[in-house]
Amino acid sequence: MGYIRDNTAISLKKNYMPNIGLIVPDIGNEFYGNFAKGAEQFCSENHWGLIINSSDNDQARENQYIDNLYQQKVAGIIMARASHEEKAKTNSFEKLKELGIEHVLLDFSGTDKSNVVTCDHYEAGYNATKFLISLGHERIACITGDQYLEGDRARLDGYKKALAEAGIEYDPSIIVHSDYTYSTTLNVVQSLDLTKFTAVFAFNDLMAVAFCNYIESLGFSIPHDFSVIGNDDTLITRIGTPTLTTIYQPIQQMGYSAAQIIFDKKQHPSNDKVIKKFPTKLIMRDSTLLRAH
Amino acid sequence: MGYIRDNTAISLKKNYMPNIGLIVPDIGNEFYGNFAKGAEQFCSENHWGLIINSSDNDQARENQYIDNLYQQKVAGIIMARASHEEKAKTNSFEKLKELGIEHVLLDFSGTDKSNVVTCDHYEAGYNATKFLISLGHERIACITGDQYLEGDRARLDGYKKALAEAGIEYDPSIIVHSDYTYSTTLNVVQSLDLTKFTAVFAFNDLMAVAFCNYIESLGFSIPHDFSVIGNDDTLITRIGTPTLTTIYQPIQQMGYSAAQIIFDKKQHPSNDKVIKKFPTKLIMRDSTLLRAH
Repeated sequence: MGYIRDNTAISLKKNYMPNIGLIVPDIGNEFYGNFAKGAEQFCSENHWGLIINSSDNDQARENQYIDNLYQQKVAGIIMARASHEEKAKTNSFEKLKELGIEHVLLDFSGTDKSNVVTCDHYEAGYNATKFLISLGHERIACITGDQYLEGDRARLDGYKKALAEAGIEYDPSIIVHSDYTYSTTLNVVQSLDLTKFTAVFAFNDLMAVAFCNYIESLGFSIPHDFSVIGNDDTLITRIGTPTLTTIYQPIQQMGYSAAQIIFDKKQHPSNDKVIKKFPTKLIMRDSTLLRAH
Repeated sequence: MGYIRDNTAISLKKNYMPNIGLIVPDIGNEFYGNFAKGAEQFCSENHWGLIINSSDNDQARENQYIDNLYQQKVAGIIMARASHEEKAKTNSFEKLKELGIEHVLLDFSGTDKSNVVTCDHYEAGYNATKFLISLGHERIACITGDQYLEGDRARLDGYKKALAEAGIEYDPSIIVHSDYTYSTTLNVVQSLDLTKFTAVFAFNDLMAVAFCNYIESLGFSIPHDFSVIGNDDTLITRIGTPTLTTIYQPIQQMGYSAAQIIFDKKQHPSNDKVIKKFPTKLIMRDSTLLRAH
């Protein structure tokens, strides 16, 4: 068998194992799957392991996972937080801080001890809206995912900024709040007054598809009657009909970077928190069109 | 903080860590994400960790991962094999056997030391075909994923059996071989003579969608001109238009079971290999219809 380097023994001296813990709300979701894929890639390039936990959007499980990973002496934890509530009973960010464990959050600023990987969601909201305006659309509906997420708030701010620049008044009656799922969105969009807008910006692709399917079931056509932009550039944007204009965020690269942050900080400990903000990119496909006059 | 059980110390005495390694071709793929989710659920219920590796369908990486996980003293390895080649240069199954590590394979029989979780793919192919025949279809095309996978071969055998029972002759000219991806399938289906069949059974959902999109781009309509059945019951089957009739396999439960097999065998070592075959279920949606006469 030859000589095998015993990573376990080396690491016990260092008081941590050559593993990173990853906690996501749903590993079966393509978005988080690709985030994990990036983190896993960094780990495997460096002969570390990635221990994955899927919290099922349950905060109690999330906290339990943090305890388990801590006991397993992981080098650090990467977390995409589960909570959909503004004020959680038990704050997992505070817990990470109290345990003194190196950690990286996805899309949350956390505490003064939290490293962060995120996208420029403000720019994403701004660019999506500006693009729709450039096509002649003035009344643009929004479908948000979770108004308590920092990324969602930033996107909405970007949306408002683009409207303001174009001299278009912000109309809260065409902003609807959903939860990133297809089924909830199918219900939520029924409250929209379809005479009040000609374009839609949905904060993820799945909600955009829900709007498209709803509107097509009423006999309208995309993009002729409504232009639609999604967010995330998931598989469905490329295989749906029509294909979906969307905002790409480099989620795999963000996962890679999150693992790298933990790895680097274990080699060169420092108290400075690292914040990495990635640019997004508008990807034009067939769901957007010049507004018919 | 109270008392914390030190799993690490306990396990070093046992010569393995309370972790299971999982190797899949692509963790960003919903199918494998849900397999991982099931395995993770069992692990977290039992305070074990799941170390995930995504091989990117690369056999060399797969073998490297086995070595890494072995060095990390995982309790066992769950593997969905990467290779698309019949005879791999380095056989990862033999490697697992030589290392003497407890392991569970997804959809592969492996060696005499391999535990297996799988579905009744033969029954799936049989039921899909029988259902199409019950709708009046006699000429049924197949889009296979990887003819060297045992599951694919079993599905094709089930397809042939259903045809034979109905007295329909097997016609190899309407069987096309793809690779489970959307883009390859878009090309492959162009070789089909559309006058020779009225229904299609695709061995995963993505290939079914590729056929639907291709056929619709030619002006045909699903299900009026062609009935289509996919396989896996992934998200796209529920949000595409039309929704897709498909074969459900309990992939999450299979992941759960795979982790349980390793856990149980570490508690009660035995030389008997465990083989768990799960039933599948036909899910009728809008892409299948009585054949027009």
